[in-house]
Amino acid sequence: MPRYKLTLEYDGTGLVGWQRQKLGLSVQQIVEEAAGALCGRAVIVHGAGRTDAGVHALAQAAHLDLPRDYAPETVRNALNQHIRPHKVAVLTAERVPDTFDARRSARGRIYLYRILNRRPPAALEAGRVWHVGRALDAAAMADGASHLLGKHDFSSFRDSLCQARSPVKTLDRLEVTCADDEIRIEARARSFLHHQVRNMVGTLKLVGEGKWRPSDVAAALEARDRRAGGPTAPAEGLYLVQVVYPGD
Amino acid sequence: MPRYKLTLEYDGTGLVGWQRQKLGLSVQQIVEEAAGALCGRAVIVHGAGRTDAGVHALAQAAHLDLPRDYAPETVRNALNQHIRPHKVAVLTAERVPDTFDARRSARGRIYLYRILNRRPPAALEAGRVWHVGRALDAAAMADGASHLLGKHDFSSFRDSLCQARSPVKTLDRLEVTCADDEIRIEARARSFLHHQVRNMVGTLKLVGEGKWRPSDVAAALEARDRRAGGPTAPAEGLYLVQVVYPGD
Repeated sequence: MPRYKLTLEYDGTGLVGWQRQKLGLSVQQIVEEAAGALCGRAVIVHGAGRTDAGVHALAQAAHLDLPRDYAPETVRNALNQHIRPHKVAVLTAERVPDTFDARRSARGRIYLYRILNRRPPAALEAGRVWHVGRALDAAAMADGASHLLGKHDFSSFRDSLCQARSPVKTLDRLEVTCADDEIRIEARARSFLHHQVRNMVGTLKLVGEGKWRPSDVAAALEARDRRAGGPTAPAEGLYLVQVVYPGD
Repeated sequence: MPRYKLTLEYDGTGLVGWQRQKLGLSVQQIVEEAAGALCGRAVIVHGAGRTDAGVHALAQAAHLDLPRDYAPETVRNALNQHIRPHKVAVLTAERVPDTFDARRSARGRIYLYRILNRRPPAALEAGRVWHVGRALDAAAMADGASHLLGKHDFSSFRDSLCQARSPVKTLDRLEVTCADDEIRIEARARSFLHHQVRNMVGTLKLVGEGKWRPSDVAAALEARDRRAGGPTAPAEGLYLVQVVYPGD
């Protein structure tokens, strides 16, 4: 059966996340039902990674096998037709070899976390950013972030439900930038632990508020204990920006 | 009674527009009810201009008179508190002289129209852009737009319900720019006719599709007849970006 790679954009608001759940609508279910409508039989869609409830994607990756050799544009357009009116869009569909696996073939994941840092609440960006009313020191946050770069045991930023075999990950990028009233945190790694980005962001917010010194982030990492890390930042500010594959 | 100027951001989705209506919730009603809750009596909020149902604002301006001399930050924060959970935010509140009138004192209005120009539908930007699936020629649209600059009788782009005394307006700016898969049209004038921006955008889209030549826009303007102009672009792509006052 021909295999296709999909690139997906979605608004995670109101969804239970990527993965199918008994209660609530997931991105996976929406795309699988669209694929089922296209080819008349049940189809499984394999994502590159799970995103939590409320988390958005600019470009999630997934693969699926279809019983017929459709033109890639047909797959993309037909899926978008059937997905309507959900806020999920297939940006591209490509024919890939059977050896391609959205999760296993991935060489990196890039996430963006958006903080709206102003006293008035979010209006146009409600549900798309974490609104933090108190002024944050972005330079201190960037300083704190630098302590997390590289290969470490990230147990202090790992959710208790995390199923990864090892807490050791290599963080290739953790950049804090500031433009107007928005602070953006971009993270890149081959893979992340469950809630790792949100737990790192919640910790950096403590630094931005002046409650923690930047060097306290290093101490938290060193502790290898979730209780040493900061709180989990809300899902609504998080975006899966890109899944990187060999050759990208 | 002390007068305050408000700057307001809002998501127009699901609202009937700026102005109070018998059926449906308006931005004016939301802000007036918040002001009433703040000072314990009915307050009228005067906007710089009406925005249609579904139109967004990055910075609408308004004024209101309050029975007490509150600190401006108190007005802003209390209004935001009472406005919750609506997607309307008071960005700033300022004390202004009694001679300030949000509508009459304005010297200019700047609008932005966003077109998402790609085959896949909008997901994250659903309700915030006009999705046009067929590729548009932005350079031709910019060429067409240039014919509308300056002082003209804009009857061809005026809604039949428009209450302005004269169809003559001076269009100071109409810029078409393109970045990634988005085409942005920015318009500036002292004031606009009802639906003028959306009617100009709907006309420029015909140029972008190649159905009209850029010079056909000049002919449509010349006709001074609404039937000569193009269709009205949907509200969801339109943003009131700024209301300009003397000294800005």
